[in-house]
Amino acid sequence: MSQQPIDHPEYPPVEMQGPSCPVPLSHNERIVMGHGSGGRMSHDLIQRIFHSAFDNPILRLGNDAGIFTVSSNTPNTIAISTDSHVVKPLFFPGGDIGRLSICGTVNDISMMGAIPLYLTVGFILEEGLEIITLEKIVASMKTASEEAGIEIIAGDTKVVERGKADGLYINTSGIGVRKKKYQIGGEFAKPGDIILLSGSIGDHGIAVLEGRGELGFSSGIQSDVSPLNHLVSTILETGEKEPGNAIHVLRDPTRGGLATTLNEIARQSHVGIMIDETQIPIHPAVAAASEMLGFDPLYIANEGKLVAFVSRLEADKILEKMRTTKYGEDAVIIGEVLETPPKRVMMKTAIGTTRILDMLSGEMLPRIC
Amino acid sequence: MSQQPIDHPEYPPVEMQGPSCPVPLSHNERIVMGHGSGGRMSHDLIQRIFHSAFDNPILRLGNDAGIFTVSSNTPNTIAISTDSHVVKPLFFPGGDIGRLSICGTVNDISMMGAIPLYLTVGFILEEGLEIITLEKIVASMKTASEEAGIEIIAGDTKVVERGKADGLYINTSGIGVRKKKYQIGGEFAKPGDIILLSGSIGDHGIAVLEGRGELGFSSGIQSDVSPLNHLVSTILETGEKEPGNAIHVLRDPTRGGLATTLNEIARQSHVGIMIDETQIPIHPAVAAASEMLGFDPLYIANEGKLVAFVSRLEADKILEKMRTTKYGEDAVIIGEVLETPPKRVMMKTAIGTTRILDMLSGEMLPRIC
Repeated sequence: MSQQPIDHPEYPPVEMQGPSCPVPLSHNERIVMGHGSGGRMSHDLIQRIFHSAFDNPILRLGNDAGIFTVSSNTPNTIAISTDSHVVKPLFFPGGDIGRLSICGTVNDISMMGAIPLYLTVGFILEEGLEIITLEKIVASMKTASEEAGIEIIAGDTKVVERGKADGLYINTSGIGVRKKKYQIGGEFAKPGDIILLSGSIGDHGIAVLEGRGELGFSSGIQSDVSPLNHLVSTILETGEKEPGNAIHVLRDPTRGGLATTLNEIARQSHVGIMIDETQIPIHPAVAAASEMLGFDPLYIANEGKLVAFVSRLEADKILEKMRTTKYGEDAVIIGEVLETPPKRVMMKTAIGTTRILDMLSGEMLPRIC
Repeated sequence: MSQQPIDHPEYPPVEMQGPSCPVPLSHNERIVMGHGSGGRMSHDLIQRIFHSAFDNPILRLGNDAGIFTVSSNTPNTIAISTDSHVVKPLFFPGGDIGRLSICGTVNDISMMGAIPLYLTVGFILEEGLEIITLEKIVASMKTASEEAGIEIIAGDTKVVERGKADGLYINTSGIGVRKKKYQIGGEFAKPGDIILLSGSIGDHGIAVLEGRGELGFSSGIQSDVSPLNHLVSTILETGEKEPGNAIHVLRDPTRGGLATTLNEIARQSHVGIMIDETQIPIHPAVAAASEMLGFDPLYIANEGKLVAFVSRLEADKILEKMRTTKYGEDAVIIGEVLETPPKRVMMKTAIGTTRILDMLSGEMLPRIC
């Protein structure tokens, strides 16, 4: 397990990396763990291998879900998304792979401003998995599905030989509907937008590390893994003059953490982002564990948090509404969107300096989703 | 690798196995390879663990895709489906895991009478996988997508440690639209229906075995892995009086083979099925390889074939149309639907006797999809 880079060069060369110009992979020609980090290596792999082959206008947007229209007569567009879950261990403080698999896809759909309706589930089971383990995980999926208010309407089960998986892997794909009037996506951040964060960061990653026995002590931290669709639907229609147009970007900072998510959005929207380190809620136990292990919480995964880029005029109202929800009660304003420097995220630090906050560049915490 | 059961007891006790009465698993309490066979053990696992937890009217139908309506104003319903692909080896005569992953989901959507539009792809990559291998597989996915006329609009990539996968696994989920007037599904077989089969059986399973080096000789067989959506759209509107109502069931006999697929349909529709062994096309090389290995081609997987249960009056016309398509040119009539015995499949054998054709009950050919 490698450490997060703590010291970034003050202004590293900006990498031009639009979907239309795939970057050659600079490292060796085999898959390494860093390709699954959610950070720069993942992005490079996706650009070079997947986007160049499957290029189309929807995929090119690079959002959490693909949006399309089936019929011009309906008031809704459709959002679909997919997520495979390989977390190790299967059970961790505050959650398990089952709850994670439901929440992950519910959240990806929700981050497009869509209402998730139905999920599909694909299980890859390892020979020798105890049935009781599977039953516990499925029960947890059921509970999470009920909380989110979605239904599973298609599934698939495969079994691989002992040693060819890690207990089980779960893919969930989802479908939701979105009002046509919404313009929500990573490409819609606008200079002047206010950036909200729905609560503390780093809880999930630390909880998973504790579950793996890699902390060496008990932090007391629980994963934040939660369905955010109700939080999203609570704030979607905010807006005095044009209800529904105050929210420009929604995204859940999962793999790669808050810093990577903000970098993705800065690139998609060609804007600068400035956040204030002192405003970012971090549970004291997460801060302590991170310091001991040499991790930066800004790069640690979350599974029940979102950032919202919203119209400055409506920011206070949206924040207030967010705080009325179960998973948004600790929501805060963490920053704003600037014209320049484009595609860059900067952070005012606690000691008063400003530094570039880059995308996660090396490995990640191992298999936290 | 276990052999297929060749001798069935003449009238084994009928197992009552509706979605509302999950059957306790009778074997030991761990996942074994047979749970992924697509046969009886898979069905038991799905009933006991998944359907009992996620029960809802759409899932309960037990079809290849879930069908639902987003808006009452549109002429279409939506079909979604999911399939994880774990085939070993990744490349086999006539195909590879990439082509398989696209065709598998395109076909599941098509088997509901729906037109597949978009796919999502979730990769689980094993650390150490060669990038060039991934590139070849992705190129094959691109080719198959273009042939099927679908687009991939959302994706996900995870990496697991060396030894925790088998090169890579691919989940594809898909969405399609279906005209509301169609009533196509495993539950719509009617006594009197004619059963069509689009071509020869067993090719895929034997090709995969050859790819694994388990044949010990070269059979010359190529996998039939193909997208069947164009074949389906060619026949969908057949019907003099009520175009679109002549086709009652479409299903692709993948894991578990033709015999298992017919059993699924007999159970879903509470009908009897009679097929004629002499009418089932089997490539001589498949027949020879099966005999040498002790497999029954009726239980071997296919990835580019379908069975269609159609109105007796329109059967010849549908057969004729099917034969005009690339993947249906060898289509034949193999049997018919009877009132009794309900939930049973029978076969007139080449030697003139009639025997019960049961669902695959033990293990399958290992990891053929």
